[in-house]
Amino acid sequence: MNIALDMMGGDFAPLETVKGAAAFLQSAEQDIHLTLIGDEEQIRTHLIEYPIPENRFAIVPSTQVIGMHEHPTRALKEKPESSIAIGFKLLAAGNTEAFISAGNTGAMMVGALFSIKTIEGVLRPTIGAYMPREDGTLGLLVDVGLNADCKPENLNQFATLGSLYAKHILNFENPSVGLVNLGEEEGKGNLLAQAAYPLLKENKFINFIGNVEGRDLLDTKSDVFVCDGFTGNVILKMAESIYDIARRRNIDDEHFNRFNFEQYGGVPVLGVSRPVIIGHGISHATAFSNMIRIAQRMLETDLMGKIKDSFTTEG
Amino acid sequence: MNIALDMMGGDFAPLETVKGAAAFLQSAEQDIHLTLIGDEEQIRTHLIEYPIPENRFAIVPSTQVIGMHEHPTRALKEKPESSIAIGFKLLAAGNTEAFISAGNTGAMMVGALFSIKTIEGVLRPTIGAYMPREDGTLGLLVDVGLNADCKPENLNQFATLGSLYAKHILNFENPSVGLVNLGEEEGKGNLLAQAAYPLLKENKFINFIGNVEGRDLLDTKSDVFVCDGFTGNVILKMAESIYDIARRRNIDDEHFNRFNFEQYGGVPVLGVSRPVIIGHGISHATAFSNMIRIAQRMLETDLMGKIKDSFTTEG
Repeated sequence: MNIALDMMGGDFAPLETVKGAAAFLQSAEQDIHLTLIGDEEQIRTHLIEYPIPENRFAIVPSTQVIGMHEHPTRALKEKPESSIAIGFKLLAAGNTEAFISAGNTGAMMVGALFSIKTIEGVLRPTIGAYMPREDGTLGLLVDVGLNADCKPENLNQFATLGSLYAKHILNFENPSVGLVNLGEEEGKGNLLAQAAYPLLKENKFINFIGNVEGRDLLDTKSDVFVCDGFTGNVILKMAESIYDIARRRNIDDEHFNRFNFEQYGGVPVLGVSRPVIIGHGISHATAFSNMIRIAQRMLETDLMGKIKDSFTTEG
Repeated sequence: MNIALDMMGGDFAPLETVKGAAAFLQSAEQDIHLTLIGDEEQIRTHLIEYPIPENRFAIVPSTQVIGMHEHPTRALKEKPESSIAIGFKLLAAGNTEAFISAGNTGAMMVGALFSIKTIEGVLRPTIGAYMPREDGTLGLLVDVGLNADCKPENLNQFATLGSLYAKHILNFENPSVGLVNLGEEEGKGNLLAQAAYPLLKENKFINFIGNVEGRDLLDTKSDVFVCDGFTGNVILKMAESIYDIARRRNIDDEHFNRFNFEQYGGVPVLGVSRPVIIGHGISHATAFSNMIRIAQRMLETDLMGKIKDSFTTEG
């Protein structure tokens, strides 16, 4: 198994990417190899302090870096030697099986959507985020920004994708799926939610429990929350800010500490043919090591194959 | 000045409505009178313990009650002797100047939209909610559910309405207005936000500061937050749930305690010709007394006249 990591992506790269890769390999099976994409000299320097056995990795040098605020499409085009562009090239060619980066989010999205294939039947890939819950588990919110405007069918597909992820990666046996809405009763909502509801109700791949409200998002009422990417993005960033407030207020609470989204690293783009994980810019070693582990699990459980099956059966 | 209060609305009515009315009148000017609509016997019973001088109020008896889960339009039609139906009748006839209820929210909205006039030029009235901030002030979020689907022009009008409320009732000198969005840069957003941005930028009645994100909603970046009612409703209910979580975690923090939305009572419907305030179902005495005070302030500052001026000038 080979997983590629953008060593230059994120605010604390490449030190934290090296540390994360080293930490991951210490506990990983022998047959997992990493492809480290980045400035070879910098990577080698950090490898002195955080060593990785030479037979577990290969460095693919990159000479360009896409900045955090560059225009995604333009940057990918104009910087073919950037770590992100190289990562997607390797992934598309089958030279690696998964790609992870905490670099320019937009460039990662564009790369995921246009460098590799979308799984047949998937209208729009989606990106989710974890929602920390008081029982210590993580719920999943999809979409959190890849699709600002959605059609009802998109939401229905996000539900299937999120549900499969929750089952195989987050280990929920029969994950419940709730539609984010402004009221509980069927028939409530904006036009999108109203039209999505009957589709979700008929979707045989999910365990649909109906509408959920804003107050349920930080609770265990549902394991998967489905909404358009505009609403989801606002929810995610608001949830992230709760941690900042708690920290400013000197509140040290086990649950509120779990709103430190930094530790989760990132959630994969769902609906594309290979695992692509977009990390948070402020990712540290633990986040990188977590993301590699998620990619590994996605490959081990053949999540892509399972998504393919669902969308083929549906057709 | 005469303000009408639905004595039967809310989970703890009429005890808490009586207590709230009594508390308000204790500190209010002599020329303010209340019209108490409800079951006279029940009201009189509670008035023994929480007395109000006889010359400060009148009871208008109601014999029907609209339940919290009744269908709004049907209930208003079928229960003309309910406290809510009577309240709007008095308001429409000019027998009272403002109407407050913590009863059936839907019935209150329908009443506000159809019993009294919308201010000329206002396409869609809106309802907002307070957002507690660490500096002790309250921000204002509009819309929080009255308008699930919005057009760009609606958002632009919500901005004007919210801004006037923030200025005259919340005492912000030149309230800043932010457009809730998934990114900070101009051009970001779903189709609605993208189209609303230039309108807000050109709106000469507001101090528009651009896009704000989910992380800014609980902060002081903006005084007024503008969004569609679907997004706003999810935001509000998520904010409300923060208090519940903090309480469950035994966190007693001055700021997190301010997420107890119960204490604020309710925010008026903006854009209709008279003050209508829809309270939270779980309102207690303080909330009722706060809502009467807000109605009083709306009348004293002639907020409706100022809204009228803005929308006339605009045309």
